[in-house]
Amino acid sequence: MTATTTTTTAKPKANNGVNVDALLGAREALSKAPEAAKFKWRASCKWVNGTHSRSSVQGFYGLGTEQKHKTEFTFEADHPEIFASEDKGATPVEMVLAGLASCLTAGVAAVAQRRNIQLRSVEAKLEGSMDIQGILGIDKDVRNGYDDITVTFDIDADASRKDIEALVAQSQKRSAVYDIITNPTNVKVKVK
Amino acid sequence: MTATTTTTTAKPKANNGVNVDALLGAREALSKAPEAAKFKWRASCKWVNGTHSRSSVQGFYGLGTEQKHKTEFTFEADHPEIFASEDKGATPVEMVLAGLASCLTAGVAAVAQRRNIQLRSVEAKLEGSMDIQGILGIDKDVRNGYDDITVTFDIDADASRKDIEALVAQSQKRSAVYDIITNPTNVKVKVK
Repeated sequence: MTATTTTTTAKPKANNGVNVDALLGAREALSKAPEAAKFKWRASCKWVNGTHSRSSVQGFYGLGTEQKHKTEFTFEADHPEIFASEDKGATPVEMVLAGLASCLTAGVAAVAQRRNIQLRSVEAKLEGSMDIQGILGIDKDVRNGYDDITVTFDIDADASRKDIEALVAQSQKRSAVYDIITNPTNVKVKVK
Repeated sequence: MTATTTTTTAKPKANNGVNVDALLGAREALSKAPEAAKFKWRASCKWVNGTHSRSSVQGFYGLGTEQKHKTEFTFEADHPEIFASEDKGATPVEMVLAGLASCLTAGVAAVAQRRNIQLRSVEAKLEGSMDIQGILGIDKDVRNGYDDITVTFDIDADASRKDIEALVAQSQKRSAVYDIITNPTNVKVKVK
C-alpha cells in the first residue's frame, strides 16, 4: 500500500474591481424593503442651436431618498455634416448604443466577479442598422429606429469559451438597457 | 369716401440653425435612391475596471459609403457609489434618457424651422422609473428596464401653446430614439 499525496491548488480569487459582497448585501436588504428598490433616473437637456443639444445627469432618487452623482455628467449631441448639421456631438442613436454597450460590459464584470473569473480585457463592438427613410418621412412602412443591433464581445479572461459565453448570457439576462431596447417601454411626452 | 391703407407685415423668417432645405433635398434624393438611406451606426466599448467602461463613437456607414464624425466622441459609464461603484460616469440607463432627450430636442428644432417658428429656448426634463429588484434578480416579475419614462418640454418660442404642442408631437412621431424605446428591437449579443 502506497501513500498518495494530492495537492489541491486553490484558484486565486479574481479581482475585477466589483464589490460583489456589497451587491449581494444590497439584494438581501432590498428584498426585505422593496420600496427602497424604486428608483427614478433623470436627465435634463438644453437646446443649443440647430440639432445640437447638451444633456446633463446628476440627481436621481433611490433607497427612499434623493441621491446625487459625485459630479455632473454632460453629453453633447448633434447630427453629422452629411445631414447639414455641425457634428458637435454623437447622434442620439449612437448614444443609445453606448448605453447598451456599457450596461452589458458592467454586467460582464459583475458576473465574472461573482463566478471568480479574472477578466483581462473586455471589448464590445456594436452596430445598429437603420433605414433613414423612416425618420425622413419617405416611407411610412419604415420604422424610425433600428431594424436590429448586433453586439460582439471580445473577452480575454481566465475562463473557457463556454464559461465566457455563459458570462455574457447572464449579463444580457440582467441588463436594464438590453431590456429597454428589446421590449416596449411607455414614454409620455408633454409640454410644461 | 376715405382711403384705408392696410399694412401687412410678413412674419420674419425663423432661424433655428437647421438647414431645412438641405434636409428636404436629402429626402427627395433618398426617395429616388433608397439604398443610400441604409445606415449603420456603431459604437465600441472598453472595460476599464469594475463597472466603469469607456465607449466611443466615430465611424458609421451611410449614403452608400463609410462616413466619419469630425472627431471621436467618448462616453464614460459607471454605477454610483450607493452600488459600491466609483461613480466615474453616468449610468447606462441615464445615457439612454440623454439619447431620448437629444433626439426629441433636435426634432423640435427641425420641425420648428420647417414651420417657421422661431425658438428662443428649449429645455426637456426626463424621468424614468425603475424597480431595481429586476436587475438584482430579487423578483422575476419585475422587469430590468424602465417601467415608464416621462419627458416634459419647456419651450419658449414665437408660437401659440397649441402650435408648440403640435411641434413636440411631430418631433415624437419622427424620433428614432422614441421608436427604439417604445417598440421592441431585435438585439443579437455574441462572443467573437
